[in-house]
Order: sequence, then structure tokens, then C-alpha cells
Amino acid sequence: MKTIRDFITQRRDGILVELEDFLRIPSVSTQSKHDDDCLTAAQWLGDHLKSLGCVSVRLEGSKNHPVVVAEGPRVPGQPTVLVYGHYDVQPPDPLELWETPPFEPTIRDGKLVARGATDDKGQVFAIVKAFEAVMSAGTPPVNVRFLVEGQEESGSGVLTDLLKQHPEYVDVDAVLVADMPYFTKGYPAVYTALRGLCYCEISVTTLKSDLHSGLYGGVAPNAHETLVRILAGLKDNKGRIKIPGLYEAVEPPTRAEKNAWRALKFNERTYMRSELGAKTISGSSTKSVFEKTWALPTFEIHGIVGGFTEEGAKTVIPATATAKVSLRLVPKQRAKTVERQLRAAVKALAPPFADVKVKFLNGGDPVLTDVSARPVELISEAFREVVGRSAVPIRSGGSIPIVPALGSQGAPVVLAGIGLPDDRLHAPNEKIELNQFWDGVSVFARFFQLMRSD
Amino acid sequence: MKTIRDFITQRRDGILVELEDFLRIPSVSTQSKHDDDCLTAAQWLGDHLKSLGCVSVRLEGSKNHPVVVAEGPRVPGQPTVLVYGHYDVQPPDPLELWETPPFEPTIRDGKLVARGATDDKGQVFAIVKAFEAVMSAGTPPVNVRFLVEGQEESGSGVLTDLLKQHPEYVDVDAVLVADMPYFTKGYPAVYTALRGLCYCEISVTTLKSDLHSGLYGGVAPNAHETLVRILAGLKDNKGRIKIPGLYEAVEPPTRAEKNAWRALKFNERTYMRSELGAKTISGSSTKSVFEKTWALPTFEIHGIVGGFTEEGAKTVIPATATAKVSLRLVPKQRAKTVERQLRAAVKALAPPFADVKVKFLNGGDPVLTDVSARPVELISEAFREVVGRSAVPIRSGGSIPIVPALGSQGAPVVLAGIGLPDDRLHAPNEKIELNQFWDGVSVFARFFQLMRSD
Repeated sequence: MKTIRDFITQRRDGILVELEDFLRIPSVSTQSKHDDDCLTAAQWLGDHLKSLGCVSVRLEGSKNHPVVVAEGPRVPGQPTVLVYGHYDVQPPDPLELWETPPFEPTIRDGKLVARGATDDKGQVFAIVKAFEAVMSAGTPPVNVRFLVEGQEESGSGVLTDLLKQHPEYVDVDAVLVADMPYFTKGYPAVYTALRGLCYCEISVTTLKSDLHSGLYGGVAPNAHETLVRILAGLKDNKGRIKIPGLYEAVEPPTRAEKNAWRALKFNERTYMRSELGAKTISGSSTKSVFEKTWALPTFEIHGIVGGFTEEGAKTVIPATATAKVSLRLVPKQRAKTVERQLRAAVKALAPPFADVKVKFLNGGDPVLTDVSARPVELISEAFREVVGRSAVPIRSGGSIPIVPALGSQGAPVVLAGIGLPDDRLHAPNEKIELNQFWDGVSVFARFFQLMRSD
Repeated sequence: MKTIRDFITQRRDGILVELEDFLRIPSVSTQSKHDDDCLTAAQWLGDHLKSLGCVSVRLEGSKNHPVVVAEGPRVPGQPTVLVYGHYDVQPPDPLELWETPPFEPTIRDGKLVARGATDDKGQVFAIVKAFEAVMSAGTPPVNVRFLVEGQEESGSGVLTDLLKQHPEYVDVDAVLVADMPYFTKGYPAVYTALRGLCYCEISVTTLKSDLHSGLYGGVAPNAHETLVRILAGLKDNKGRIKIPGLYEAVEPPTRAEKNAWRALKFNERTYMRSELGAKTISGSSTKSVFEKTWALPTFEIHGIVGGFTEEGAKTVIPATATAKVSLRLVPKQRAKTVERQLRAAVKALAPPFADVKVKFLNGGDPVLTDVSARPVELISEAFREVVGRSAVPIRSGGSIPIVPALGSQGAPVVLAGIGLPDDRLHAPNEKIELNQFWDGVSVFARFFQLMRSD
């Protein structure tokens, strides 16, 4: 622990400069205009890992969104830890709500604000610096392999294909996935389940082209009107999703889990007001927040494209309207099945005069992990030593579609990170708290040390 | 008539060059980035009228969107015709659906394609050239005053104020408003009624900021979901608007009008397929297309702002969603009353946890005109002489909010134009057919001649 603390004290300023360089690259994987930036981020990270002593660094699987594959120095007889993360980030819009530009990292009040500060560049970088810390003591304690992808926000297609070609990449002793937050400030968490995702676009066309509402209002079918009616039909006003069959595969949490969740320190009213900034908590009033965010599927509308959306007034009847929607899935549901169920539900709601299409954009199955595995216990121990409290076993409402593939060779997957729930992931003014970051470097470095088998 | 024909023959090429210059100015009044362009269009038109012999030309009422006020040479003892039109145009988006750029006028197959080709620069310019034609014969037959505004597409605020200060501007013998199409190709029309307009934005806020659907999906109220439910609640699936009180003031068309409309040459199936490009005609199956577009109010969604609407997938729960909507109003309804009714209906549909606002953007009352007035008969006669068929008296579904003010001193308002119903007003690839344009120059010139009192 002393080596780690000394390392952080000496390298603090330099590490922040490096992290800011990494965050400055606008590596948005869902927008093709940022293809070059994604490649730049991959190259930056690969070069950086090489400079820290990785003996093999390759960019694999894609020209624009390659996976950074890197191996630390070989340590015979010791286990191998696979570090998973992603260098791609969410789009930064709406830009006007950022207090400082999303790709100009800014430190204020002990927080580093930038797109990707927590999700996931900041967390990946904490592990990279943990690796540097244990390297600085001479021989590293264990074998470390990095797999850092550039498409986590857009379906993980490249890494999925790469792991089919190279199943040996995940033939390891532990997988560390640091893309998750603490349960709450002061309470580190280790995650036992992730939700899956099914992201689609629902498009409605009712006319050959947009028409003037003066001349045709009253007779021309409006694409937005049809879309709005379909969307309103997909959920009732109590939050129950009206997609036939959707809830059938849902496995409810065990009694033990529900009891454990009930014991968590949590104030629903404070959560609603401060964390959501809302006047209600959606969904069934008989289910807890934990059940609704961890153990039940969701249906969300993310945005609606079409018609006139600029400043001012334009009296157009839209010919086409497209809703971006997604479902979060819970253990025992399957993304492919849910996609089929959504298609059927939309078809049943579509009026005969409208051309209605559902296009699948990306998704993945939910995950259940083995919380009793030794690496999971060791990360909890590392947290206890560094921050004074073991990790609490909880679930996550988020999705990391690649996780099932990372565990496909039987390695225990450790889902634990250093972000906080209010880090504004996917939203304006995303941040990481610097105290969390430095604790993270220590926790991950200690984890590498604890993984050593002697 | 010979003078007019000779004028067109000699000036044809030059006139097209002038019209293209006018159309090239992107004078979009609803977008502040085009303020300078609106002023440029006003100056261009003012200079042009001066060059044709107008004795007084002023830009009045606003720095950026002035009204062009111009007077032809004084003709003692003769009536005064007021020409109304507008030099501002609708926004051109969606740009990608234009076959040629909206502000690079292009002639193909006898059609001039550009934003504003028909609405209203092309039609205004046909009257300007009619004025030039009658001027070319020496003394003009009547007094002509032009009032060409730059805010027809954004509420006519400047001209409304100007007419309050200068009611004498409309103290004339006839008002000619050429912002209307033929009934159908070959059948010129004169309009007895216009619908009014009430254009609003409905905004819903449910969260302090956008949230990540992984962490908060299932408990965070989604602004789009609430908006969609409100919008779906404002109209039933048969097209009846569910705004309490809305239909009470509606005056049904007279039996005589309904009989006249029944006599019009019209094929509903062809109209649906070719003109709408749709598989249905919206609204009550017991009402005709004419009743639905001319004598009944409408409610349309024009677009929905908020959340994520770019390429790709972003799993955000939107904090705010705004729908641009409008109602078309029919005789005896009042825009102010309807705005109040819409506010009340939205309020009744809004759930207690959402902050829901209705913002009025612009609008105007519907119009009923006196079809037996002499200037109305004379425009019909002009059509008969030039195109071989008198104008049929019909209504319009469109709105020109300034018309009541133009008739406020008792002058008969002549609503007749030279566009065609398929000119794609407010839509991509707006056009004017050149044959219609040249006929228009002749019709309006002949109208000036017929208005002479001796």
C-alpha cells in the first residue's frame, strides 16, 4: 500500500495532464463524423500502454473502432487479470446545457468535468494508472491483459467478432469491468446483475412528402399523430409496458436479494428530489426503486425525429416521424425475443394507412454474475483496505452487452467501479470526482496485488 | 389585352432573370439568422418598384422585416387598388429532400423550382410585372398601392402595427391578395373564406436534467412519454379534436355552399393517391374533403423537440420535450378563444408531476369575404378573358392572418391567385409553373384595366 500511495503523491499532476489529453479526444462511436477521433483515442491509449511497459500492444478488429489489446510483462506462475473498458463516449448533445465545452476537460471544486470523465475513459485510466503503480515497484504481481474497445456505446460489434475469433483472450483468471458506480458516496459496490438492452427506431410514413397544413389540414394523415398514438399505446399511465409477452420471462429477484436491498441505506424522497430532480417516481407504487431499476424491464422514448423542429413556426404536416426507443431487459429475458415482441406490438397498434417500420439498432442480453467467486471477494477486500468499507453486493440497471462474452470461458467477472451515481453519465456536465479517481487507482492496484497467488 | 401580350413577349427572358434574383434571397422570417436576408429582399423589391415608376417607395415599421410601401403614379378620378403580398418565405428544411438547392432557382419542364416560387414571391412578382405592363402603355389605368410585408410566415406583427398607425393605407377601393392557388389546373378560383390559425408550443419538463436510462430507467419520469400521452389525448383516432368547447363556435357552411362544392369536379380517390400520396383521408367519413379542409378546425403536430434525435443510439431519458402544434380555425371561431381552450385541455391532461406549459407563437382569426362585390366580379372576368374560364367561388383551408385588417376600412378583399394545388407550399421542391405565371401577369394587368371607372 505504501508503494501505491507514494506513486500517487509523486505522479498526481502528471496523471491529470494525461487524463485530460485522453478526454480531449471526441471519440463518439455512434456518429460517423467522429470515426477518425475514435481511431485517435485508440492510438493514444495503445501508445500510452506501450510507454508503461506493456510488451505487446495491438489495435485489432476494425480500422476506425479497433480494440486496444495489450499485455503486461509475463509473470510466470501467476494468474491473469483481464481488464475490460471502453474508450468511446456518448454524444455530448444537448451542447447548450454544458457549463464548459464537453471536450475541454475542466477541474472545478475537486471534480473533473468532461464527456467520458466517468463513462468510461476516467475509470479505464484509473486502472491503467493502477497498473503503472504496481509496475513502478519492479515486477508486476500478476499477468495483466487489457481489452479496451471503441464501440461500447454502439453495440460492441467489433469486440464481439474479435472474441469469436480469439476466445483465448478471455481464457483468464478474472475479468475486471470498471464501468459501474458506487452504490452511493462512501459505499463501494460489486454488481451481481446487469440489465440488457434492445434499442430500436420506430418509423411511421403516412404521406409521400410533407404537406402544408393550410391546404391539407383535416384530410392528410399526420405521421407524428400516428406515431404518438403508437407510443402512447406501448405503456399504460401506471408505467406498465403493454408489449404482449414481455414480462413472461422476467425472473423476480430472490427473497434474499430483496431483503438485502431493503437493508441498504436509501431515502426514496431525497433520491426523487435530489438525484432525479423529479416530483414523482415512475412505475408501480408497490415496487421499490431497486426492483424497478434492477429487476424490471423498461421502455423509454429517447427522441422523435421528423417534421419541423427548428426555431419558430412552420405549419407542415409531417410525412414521416421516427421515434428512438429502447427497452432495458432483466435476467432471463433475451434481446432477440424482446425485439420480436416489440415488432409484434407495434404492428398491432399501426393503423392500416400508415407504413410502420421497426429497425433494431443495438442491444444485448442481461447478465447474472457469481458473487461468491474469489476475485469478487478480493475487490471487496481492496475497497475495505483503501476506503474503509467492503463493497455491497447490488445489481445495476445499466447494460454492458459484451459482459456475457467476457465470461464465456468461465472466468469470474468482477463488476465494480469508482464513479458516483450523480456523475451525469450520458448527460451534460458528466464528471468524475478526483477523490474517487485517486481512491480508484489505489483500489485497482491493491486488487492486482491481492490477486497474486503466493 | 394586346398591350399586355406584347409586353410579355418582349420582356419574358428579362422577367425570369429578375424573378430568379428575388428568389435567390433566403428571406426566412421565422429564423433570426436570416434577418439580414429579409431586409435585403425588402430593399430589392423597393428598388425594383422604384425603377418601374412608383413615385413613393418606403420601407416601414421594422429594421429587419419592414413593410415595402409603394405608390404608383397618381391617376386622378380613378379608384385605388391595394396590392398585398409578402416577400418572406418558409424555412427550406428538410434540405436533403430538395432536388436542387432551395435558394438556387432552377427551371425544368416549364417549372421554376425554389423556396418562395409560389408562396409568395412568385405571385407578388406576377402583380409587379402586371403593373409594369399597364405602365408600359403610358398612363396607368388606376391608382396602385403596394403593401408587401416580411412577416406573413411569422405572424404579420409589423404590418399589423403599421396598419393601426396608418389606417388610411387600407382606405382603398379594392384589396388584391394573390397568395392563393387555382381550385385545380384550368380552374381559377376566388376565395370566400380563409381559415384562421393558432400556433403554439406545448412543453413538458419532468426532470432537472436528462438522465441515463440504465441507471434511472423505470423510476425517472420521461418527458417524451408524458408529452406523447397529452398529444394522443388531444384528438381521437377518428380525427375529432378533444378540446372542450372547440366546435361550439363553428358555423357550418350554408346549404348553398355545400351544393356548390358538391358540383366541383373532384375525384376523392385520385386526390388521396396523387395529391396527398396517402392511403387514407383523415377525419370523419361522413364529411367531404371540402368540408374538412375549408369548414372544420384542425389540430396538427408539426414536430417534437428534445431528447436525442441525431444519428445512432443514445439511451437518455429526456428531461424536456416540446411539441410544435397548430389549430386551423373556421368562420366564427376566434384565435384568442381557441388558445384559451387549448391551454385548458392541455392542463386537464397534464399529470401532477410534470411542468407543462403552452406558449402561443402566432395566429389570426378566420375570414369570410363578400363574393358579390364588384372587384371580385372583375377578377373573375379577367380570368375569363385570359384563361377562358371564370373563377369558381370556393373557400381556402389556409390562413392569412392579416386579411381582416386589410379589409378593416370596408374595401372588398379579392382573394385570387395563380398557383396550383400541387406547388408544394411549405414543402421541399416548391415550384411555380411558368404558364401559370405568365397567365397571372395577364390576369392581374387586365384586372387593373377593368378596375378603371370609365
